[in-house]
Amino acid sequence: MEQRDVIQALREFVLERDWGQFHTPENLAKSVSIEAAELLENYQWGNPANLENVQDELADVLTYCLLLADKLGMDPYEIVLEKLAKTRQKYPVEKARGRSDKYDQL
Amino acid sequence: MEQRDVIQALREFVLERDWGQFHTPENLAKSVSIEAAELLENYQWGNPANLENVQDELADVLTYCLLLADKLGMDPYEIVLEKLAKTRQKYPVEKARGRSDKYDQL
Amino acid sequence: MEQRDVIQALREFVLERDWGQFHTPENLAKSVSIEAAELLENYQWGNPANLENVQDELADVLTYCLLLADKLGMDPYEIVLEKLAKTRQKYPVEKARGRSDKYDQL
Amino acid sequence: MEQRDVIQALREFVLERDWGQFHTPENLAKSVSIEAAELLENYQWGNPANLENVQDELADVLTYCLLLADKLGMDPYEIVLEKLAKTRQKYPVEKARGRSDKYDQL
Repeated sequence: MEQRDVIQALREFVLERDWGQFHTPENLAKSVSIEAAELLENYQWGNPANLENVQDELADVLTYCLLLADKLGMDPYEIVLEKLAKTRQKYPVEKARGRSDKYDQL
Repeated sequence: MEQRDVIQALREFVLERDWGQFHTPENLAKSVSIEAAELLENYQWGNPANLENVQDELADVLTYCLLLADKLGMDPYEIVLEKLAKTRQKYPVEKARGRSDKYDQL
Repeated sequence: MEQRDVIQALREFVLERDWGQFHTPENLAKSVSIEAAELLENYQWGNPANLENVQDELADVLTYCLLLADKLGMDPYEIVLEKLAKTRQKYPVEKARGRSDKYDQL
Repeated sequence: MEQRDVIQALREFVLERDWGQFHTPENLAKSVSIEAAELLENYQWGNPANLENVQDELADVLTYCLLLADKLGMDPYEIVLEKLAKTRQKYPVEKARGRSDKYDQL
């Protein structure tokens, strides 16, 4: 599966439905949050999650993330790696190992 | 940028810090929601967003999505395309064109 | 503590700062979500939460809920009780007792 | 409508269904986020919201906030006013008037 094929499939899906008009960055950001909560709903009461539902909702979050990245001209994987470089600096191994604290609490 | 390289970089980052112990599917799902809200914060009051912040927060959402997918043995792009096939059926072009209604309102 | 005094204090706070212009129902709904995630962040990794932080973030969620209710002319406690009546019907005691399933799974 | 009557009604509703076992602070915090996103869904695409849905979802957010406050022994209105006092200091009128910036940007 190539990234460009996925982006292309999403673009076609949106274009066919003339949905670009609704896809402002703000509306897409809201949609990411809404779908993230539907993903979380699978873990609401601490019971074992239904993996098929989890997969569908995780896919929805990813889809809106990809649409937003595409809208803003960002490469999804590149921005993940750029942020990872920043996070490595905020959480150096020797300080952060085995701890879940925020960087300003380390 | 290859997907497997990104996943590999994330795995190393987590392993070096011994953070795997915190990365239950539930905790990762919470993290997706938390970061999604930080992304949304850039659009809270309808003013122009700071794109560097948007990029960082979108990267955080994507990062936790990739970690969750990896945890559950799911391929991020494959599940996006599988879900897209379902969504195509729920929103057929002739009914959904130019409308933002939910499928049960079309 | 009377509800009308709290609402009145919030109205004055907003008016003094001329923030009413930002408080569209949509922006307030985004704000409820954003603050809800900050509340959730206290429970992100399953560690004991800092209760002072929890109190502050819960207060923020409540504040935006009260501002939204006030904007829409709704009484916060009345709508809670109205919804409770609906939820009682969706989750009858004999079916729902001791179960965390959604109503359509009972 | 008195606050204590609302809290009492919520307690009875939970007790009858033996749902207290699910209502850990963490699960309630997740639930606040999940319902906040359902509220936001009414404003997802920028169209006029259905006010009856908004009322129901706002009531759900408030309900989980009240249950969490009750669980933690906090008075909902008192914590709103306590937080308001802090926010007044972070956003002094002369600096914050007419601006939607965060306090560290004022």
